[in-house]
Amino acid sequence: MNETRLIELLDAVRAGNVPVERAVRRLKSLAIHDLEFARVDGHRALRQGFPEVIYADGKTPAQVVKIARTILRHGGNLLATRVSRDTARALKRAFPRAKHHRDAAAVTVIRKRLPQQPGIIAVLCAGTTDIPVAAEAAVTAEIMGNRVKTFYDVGVAGLHRLLAINEELLAARVLVVVAGMEGALPSVVAGLVDRPVIAVPTSVGYGASFGGMAALLAMLNSCASGVTVVNIDNGFGAAFAATRINRGGA
Amino acid sequence: MNETRLIELLDAVRAGNVPVERAVRRLKSLAIHDLEFARVDGHRALRQGFPEVIYADGKTPAQVVKIARTILRHGGNLLATRVSRDTARALKRAFPRAKHHRDAAAVTVIRKRLPQQPGIIAVLCAGTTDIPVAAEAAVTAEIMGNRVKTFYDVGVAGLHRLLAINEELLAARVLVVVAGMEGALPSVVAGLVDRPVIAVPTSVGYGASFGGMAALLAMLNSCASGVTVVNIDNGFGAAFAATRINRGGA
Amino acid sequence: MNETRLIELLDAVRAGNVPVERAVRRLKSLAIHDLEFARVDGHRALRQGFPEVIYADGKTPAQVVKIARTILRHGGNLLATRVSRDTARALKRAFPRAKHHRDAAAVTVIRKRLPQQPGIIAVLCAGTTDIPVAAEAAVTAEIMGNRVKTFYDVGVAGLHRLLAINEELLAARVLVVVAGMEGALPSVVAGLVDRPVIAVPTSVGYGASFGGMAALLAMLNSCASGVTVVNIDNGFGAAFAATRINRGGA
Amino acid sequence: MNETRLIELLDAVRAGNVPVERAVRRLKSLAIHDLEFARVDGHRALRQGFPEVIYADGKTPAQVVKIARTILRHGGNLLATRVSRDTARALKRAFPRAKHHRDAAAVTVIRKRLPQQPGIIAVLCAGTTDIPVAAEAAVTAEIMGNRVKTFYDVGVAGLHRLLAINEELLAARVLVVVAGMEGALPSVVAGLVDRPVIAVPTSVGYGASFGGMAALLAMLNSCASGVTVVNIDNGFGAAFAATRINRGGA
Amino acid sequence: MNETRLIELLDAVRAGNVPVERAVRRLKSLAIHDLEFARVDGHRALRQGFPEVIYADGKTPAQVVKIARTILRHGGNLLATRVSRDTARALKRAFPRAKHHRDAAAVTVIRKRLPQQPGIIAVLCAGTTDIPVAAEAAVTAEIMGNRVKTFYDVGVAGLHRLLAINEELLAARVLVVVAGMEGALPSVVAGLVDRPVIAVPTSVGYGASFGGMAALLAMLNSCASGVTVVNIDNGFGAAFAATRINRGGA
Amino acid sequence: MNETRLIELLDAVRAGNVPVERAVRRLKSLAIHDLEFARVDGHRALRQGFPEVIYADGKTPAQVVKIARTILRHGGNLLATRVSRDTARALKRAFPRAKHHRDAAAVTVIRKRLPQQPGIIAVLCAGTTDIPVAAEAAVTAEIMGNRVKTFYDVGVAGLHRLLAINEELLAARVLVVVAGMEGALPSVVAGLVDRPVIAVPTSVGYGASFGGMAALLAMLNSCASGVTVVNIDNGFGAAFAATRINRGGA
Amino acid sequence: MNETRLIELLDAVRAGNVPVERAVRRLKSLAIHDLEFARVDGHRALRQGFPEVIYADGKTPAQVVKIARTILRHGGNLLATRVSRDTARALKRAFPRAKHHRDAAAVTVIRKRLPQQPGIIAVLCAGTTDIPVAAEAAVTAEIMGNRVKTFYDVGVAGLHRLLAINEELLAARVLVVVAGMEGALPSVVAGLVDRPVIAVPTSVGYGASFGGMAALLAMLNSCASGVTVVNIDNGFGAAFAATRINRGGA
Amino acid sequence: MNETRLIELLDAVRAGNVPVERAVRRLKSLAIHDLEFARVDGHRALRQGFPEVIYADGKTPAQVVKIARTILRHGGNLLATRVSRDTARALKRAFPRAKHHRDAAAVTVIRKRLPQQPGIIAVLCAGTTDIPVAAEAAVTAEIMGNRVKTFYDVGVAGLHRLLAINEELLAARVLVVVAGMEGALPSVVAGLVDRPVIAVPTSVGYGASFGGMAALLAMLNSCASGVTVVNIDNGFGAAFAATRINRGGA
Repeated sequence: MNETRLIELLDAVRAGNVPVERAVRRLKSLAIHDLEFARVDGHRALRQGFPEVIYADGKTPAQVVKIARTILRHGGNLLATRVSRDTARALKRAFPRAKHHRDAAAVTVIRKRLPQQPGIIAVLCAGTTDIPVAAEAAVTAEIMGNRVKTFYDVGVAGLHRLLAINEELLAARVLVVVAGMEGALPSVVAGLVDRPVIAVPTSVGYGASFGGMAALLAMLNSCASGVTVVNIDNGFGAAFAATRINRGGA
Repeated sequence: MNETRLIELLDAVRAGNVPVERAVRRLKSLAIHDLEFARVDGHRALRQGFPEVIYADGKTPAQVVKIARTILRHGGNLLATRVSRDTARALKRAFPRAKHHRDAAAVTVIRKRLPQQPGIIAVLCAGTTDIPVAAEAAVTAEIMGNRVKTFYDVGVAGLHRLLAINEELLAARVLVVVAGMEGALPSVVAGLVDRPVIAVPTSVGYGASFGGMAALLAMLNSCASGVTVVNIDNGFGAAFAATRINRGGA
Repeated sequence: MNETRLIELLDAVRAGNVPVERAVRRLKSLAIHDLEFARVDGHRALRQGFPEVIYADGKTPAQVVKIARTILRHGGNLLATRVSRDTARALKRAFPRAKHHRDAAAVTVIRKRLPQQPGIIAVLCAGTTDIPVAAEAAVTAEIMGNRVKTFYDVGVAGLHRLLAINEELLAARVLVVVAGMEGALPSVVAGLVDRPVIAVPTSVGYGASFGGMAALLAMLNSCASGVTVVNIDNGFGAAFAATRINRGGA
Repeated sequence: MNETRLIELLDAVRAGNVPVERAVRRLKSLAIHDLEFARVDGHRALRQGFPEVIYADGKTPAQVVKIARTILRHGGNLLATRVSRDTARALKRAFPRAKHHRDAAAVTVIRKRLPQQPGIIAVLCAGTTDIPVAAEAAVTAEIMGNRVKTFYDVGVAGLHRLLAINEELLAARVLVVVAGMEGALPSVVAGLVDRPVIAVPTSVGYGASFGGMAALLAMLNSCASGVTVVNIDNGFGAAFAATRINRGGA
Repeated sequence: MNETRLIELLDAVRAGNVPVERAVRRLKSLAIHDLEFARVDGHRALRQGFPEVIYADGKTPAQVVKIARTILRHGGNLLATRVSRDTARALKRAFPRAKHHRDAAAVTVIRKRLPQQPGIIAVLCAGTTDIPVAAEAAVTAEIMGNRVKTFYDVGVAGLHRLLAINEELLAARVLVVVAGMEGALPSVVAGLVDRPVIAVPTSVGYGASFGGMAALLAMLNSCASGVTVVNIDNGFGAAFAATRINRGGA
Repeated sequence: MNETRLIELLDAVRAGNVPVERAVRRLKSLAIHDLEFARVDGHRALRQGFPEVIYADGKTPAQVVKIARTILRHGGNLLATRVSRDTARALKRAFPRAKHHRDAAAVTVIRKRLPQQPGIIAVLCAGTTDIPVAAEAAVTAEIMGNRVKTFYDVGVAGLHRLLAINEELLAARVLVVVAGMEGALPSVVAGLVDRPVIAVPTSVGYGASFGGMAALLAMLNSCASGVTVVNIDNGFGAAFAATRINRGGA
Repeated sequence: MNETRLIELLDAVRAGNVPVERAVRRLKSLAIHDLEFARVDGHRALRQGFPEVIYADGKTPAQVVKIARTILRHGGNLLATRVSRDTARALKRAFPRAKHHRDAAAVTVIRKRLPQQPGIIAVLCAGTTDIPVAAEAAVTAEIMGNRVKTFYDVGVAGLHRLLAINEELLAARVLVVVAGMEGALPSVVAGLVDRPVIAVPTSVGYGASFGGMAALLAMLNSCASGVTVVNIDNGFGAAFAATRINRGGA
Repeated sequence: MNETRLIELLDAVRAGNVPVERAVRRLKSLAIHDLEFARVDGHRALRQGFPEVIYADGKTPAQVVKIARTILRHGGNLLATRVSRDTARALKRAFPRAKHHRDAAAVTVIRKRLPQQPGIIAVLCAGTTDIPVAAEAAVTAEIMGNRVKTFYDVGVAGLHRLLAINEELLAARVLVVVAGMEGALPSVVAGLVDRPVIAVPTSVGYGASFGGMAALLAMLNSCASGVTVVNIDNGFGAAFAATRINRGGA
């Protein structure tokens, strides 16, 4: 039912030509697919205050700049992930405010900083090779208005480094724990804290790591309750979910 | 927005208290989740004239009879698939019209036969061990109002049996082709006819058949265009899709 | 039995040296492999009116042009899929009528447009990264004589976009639904319409998408009946099968 | 270093035989494995107020009752999951307060109800066969002090049922979304709400569902951000993680 | 083209009403699917002199006896594989000549012994748990008219047992080599002899043997040329292929 | 070369008919497969002092007793693994000295205790459900003449239990570390000690543990060097390898 | 036992100091690993008359030429497989007799043609993209002294092309059947002939072909007995095995 | 508890203000995460005397040189594995003592040679293509202070080469056995010796070797006890574990 016909119906109601009862019946009988004016506003709410995100992998620098231009024209902040060095350079040329986060292979353009959530998101990773994924999570969490603390290279083969930060871990509202290879770190961390742990397997490793499959399976089978898992290398997704958790307390 | 509030709004429109323009705006601003009266009627249409179906696997005879009773109370036809011998007996005791299709491990109760579609659905299978799946497809297609022809044990290792029925295959509107082991039959059939071929892998086989995985992969990789695939052992689903195709011409 | 011997046999029949009865017996006893002149004409029928197709992936521009030249010499239309930019340029230089469908990575050369089927093939895709596969399906369906409508970027995470086109989906004779990642779109679509849905998983995604395996498995396990599946990224195959379905009503 | 030696050291300090400086050095040089008195109290905190849990699968009724007796002797609440009918009966005989949650295959014994968290945990499932896993999540969440609302049989093939509860979903603090087969529900739900979604794949399905692998992969590849995943059939784990999220706001 | 029309054509040729040239053209233009009398006699030749085979797994004793009765009515020999003890007893009751090969889980009924091939088929297996598959191969090869020598429990962890039979291995025309676990035996054997080696992986093992997958992959990757492979536990198939090789020299 | 011909050659040497030089040449030219008397005595050495082992899984009590009788007739010790309760009872009836190790599902019959190795083999397991595999390792190691210390239920989610035994771990010569689920324990242990760690994945778990595959992959990808891995549930194999390591120092 | 000690023993025999009987006992008691002079001449026999083979994949042109030079210095024929265009050019420059088989990506250098086996090896392939593997098989078979006939592009989707060559197939002693995608051709061929069929899966395909896995599984599960399988793309191995079969009749 | 507070506590003890008893209680009640001075010295011990290791894969020459400079500044030896030719050149320019081990793709810089362990580590590989992994193991074992003997190209298809070195194998304290393809070598070797065998699968192979998966599975399923396994291509890890074993005797 398009707008014109809706107006006609209401005009008829107003004119007394269509009794209210019948108008209700007609409106009730509308199948969803007739309601061209309907909108799911949950979706918009969902995005409220969040930056727009470009997944730059597989796009040319020119394509990314073009999409970025459209986004920024409408105001708002921008996050581009999986950005090559060339694309980063192109974005910085195009937008003077753009900031390149090398470790994270990400670029951000911030127009208006979001109000910060009170809770802290802790981002840990097991080895130095896991840093890119952890950094993507950290940059994402920060631009989404969270306070972020990072703890890199605290893998389980050197427990002392992990135990040394135990108190800081207990201060976090959510923990994003990134690990490749055998993916054991989230289990150990979830045994030390009583907060939600989001585990991110990375594709770091070779041979029987099968591109992160080993770490993914380990995390899904964590003996420590309270661990949930996202896709391999999905630092962005972990930070997004962590933000939803962190906002929940507001 | 519940019905009461809708009536109030329309009453106000009729009374001239709310201008049409504003009523339109209000109705347009309704998020879908406010429309508690909305219904997706596509779904009902979808089921129109189809029998209700009980997937009996993992249910006790008593449970199946109970569900069947509810269905048949509202009229309509009934199809129960993956029925054990005990469940079949229970259904026959409870519903005198019930018919047990042994090969298909299915039971049907037909109240009112559907008008038959003009097109023929041909159901083929490669080996005798594939018959249960093929028979499930045949019984399903028939109760859904299709004319069905079955050709069993026409596997590719004995081409003569397949070539002997070539003309009959050409007369079909859709072909459901069931095969386990190497799953080669759909490719060969799709090379002989110019009609849609729905391939059904079966879990028949052992060792590297991996419960039908070998046949499934073979069918997905068919060198003959025009083949689409359903899940392993899913004779019902193949017949359902074939019915949608066969009805299309109406 | 070669032609010479066949002629001899018939000469003998004509001369009365071999009784008809015995000639029938001899011809009947011919094993298929003796019939060197036999041909399966089903195959030709199958191709009737269809364009010749070149799968250009892994071929050099020169090879593709050469094959295209052979095809076009015999008249008919041409469809080249998985065409690189270089190959597209080479084809356009060689054949002035050639048209490059960038989105689809396809080139078509149309000599004589096929008569259009009455039914509509709807082609949907979930995300913008799925467009190449969807576009391949659309171009293929069109050159095969179908009316095609495309609906891109209507993934399940934004239901409103999908519901907005519900009425148009209901108007289609067949639906080709393309999706990567979790491959959920075909299930949702098949719940909205009562027409055959051909699901095409794409290799879009990373990590545990395993090159489209995740989407493929999801589609094979669709809870919505009426869905059949083709190989990962096989837009062409989906369109081919859809054409067979669409022609069926003729 | 055992207690005796620690006392000796401190005695020496007190007696002035060991200067403070040197005692500090000695204590600092203690390797963690020398500190037999050390304890990780994070772990205890973690369990605070939570019921003790028995995973009953693979244990005899007698074994479960024995473990339960030990737990209940120390006060506290008890949750037994994956409980057979026989084990449930045995528990009820042994502990009059025991309650058997049939749908969830769980038994609870509640001594002292925990104070309720303000937030709501919504538990959804796609099909009726997914109910056991969803019910396990619901029972777990409830005994851990959460307010729980359940929405069963709201799969994506019948969108109207899902859209009808949209408003209630928006009211939840966390959502546990359970689905087998193609595992599409979490993606759709995460597109409707802006809260954390914990996806639980179930082993429901056959053939290419590979015991829940298809649903698991789909959920890991969700196109909707904000989804995290637990192991197949792990309703308990999802509720545990949801509780950690729900408590976070306190 | 049915027989009647063929007779008419030949009658017309005889009567001089249809010139030979045109009759040839007509016969040549016959599509295979018109040749209802055509038969592929290669298939029959293939079976010539071979026993009929019943794959008894998943069939009841009564079913197997019934099939056996049909086969033996037409003369010929019978081989039933994967026979349970009950089925074996039933066959022996029904057919006094039946012989139960316990190790092989096979029953044979021999009416007329086939003339023996001159070549020897050697059947080896690695461990005692592989014997059932090896024995199935041996019984099959024997009933198909081959001279068979068996060498059991000659696995690679005890090379001396294998080297002790080296001379006998060299005397074989074909070797069927059966192994589970790491499946190394065929590689070692193929390095000792210059005859065709057919490798049979068995499902013997546990854990990462994945039901014989480990042995299967090992055999497919054999560093020793001349090894070909059949499906897991397929002793029958290996013997069948070996027979084709052994007959080749005749 | 059989014995007769060897005697002939030596006779000829003795008689001076064949010069030593030529005899050497002839003997050197002997291919291994001619040496029917050759034996690999390395194998026997390997077994020296070890008990004979029966893998009882899949064997009837009677079969196991029969094999045991044969072994014990020749003296020596006996170890039967994967023993059912019935088999254990049968063995105890047959051999009064037999001892049933319930946890390990093993039975031992010791005639003459082996001299003990000086080094200690530590056997750890992560959870109580891993105990059967750990106990099999412990029983095996003990009967093979090692001093064994066991530490059960010291999984990574409760680090304090693990750290509490750190000093004892450092005293071991080899460590066998058993874990199911995410298989993280060996990585953590190998980071605490400087001795060889043999990791044993167990099939404990469900869903995405895939029968121990998750733990196996985790262990193969251990970030801690010094870890080697055996097959899933292979407690026996781990103990066997540990014994070889422990004996090495003698 | 080194040569010196052997000479001493024989000297003692000749001198009558060691009785023949005792010398025999000593020689018999030699463990294989003492026989430093032993050699397995089966291996050499195996290679007799065969060309030396270089697997050129992953080697530089210079490396291949160097290995080839060493081989050809000792006489004999040479086969280099998986040869790049650069390597082929380098070989032709270095060895004037070298012949580059473009289709097969192989180079041969023939010094002395082997006597031809009487039997024919037929090499078939399903599609044009399978030709490289089939051609590798053909070139290999030919240089190994077999008569070879090739039949390319006879896939199962166009049965007429396959049936047209049926008689020629029946004339072969062994058949090497190459196919990618669904790998159905070997099953169909093995149903038409009574000779050994060696199936070669190729990595041709995309998506769910998983690099040839689909074809491999299909072939292992062939419903037609008499099929054995080699590794994906292993044209060389198939030809090698076929040669062993073809030589067997000599 | 930081150092200041620890000093205060001890001062109070010394001053008699805090009784020893209470001080003990306070120290005992310290949770590990309060002990900021704690350190796990097991880890340091573990590394004692070992070289620092750089895994150079995926790092630029400049990055590797920079890390190396830091390491060497603190004294000690250096091992860089998976080094490209460019990185090797850069290291040799930067550190004159650097030695490039071409076969192993490794560079070592040795400041002070470690005292040699008495035991020998034997490193075997099956084919020439496995040499890089074997050489990495050999270089690693040597720089860690072991005596190393290498035996390359002793695969199971040519047993004579393996048997020829049997005596030398028996002299080793540990054996590292490297093999790709079917991975059979460790089983055969473990049958010849009574020492620990560490098996290293390599990614050598194609098709169904699945990047070393076939060899890995074979090794995990070895029928010869005493074999343990490391990750695919992990020569370094095998040597590290072997060193731990070899040091054990000290």
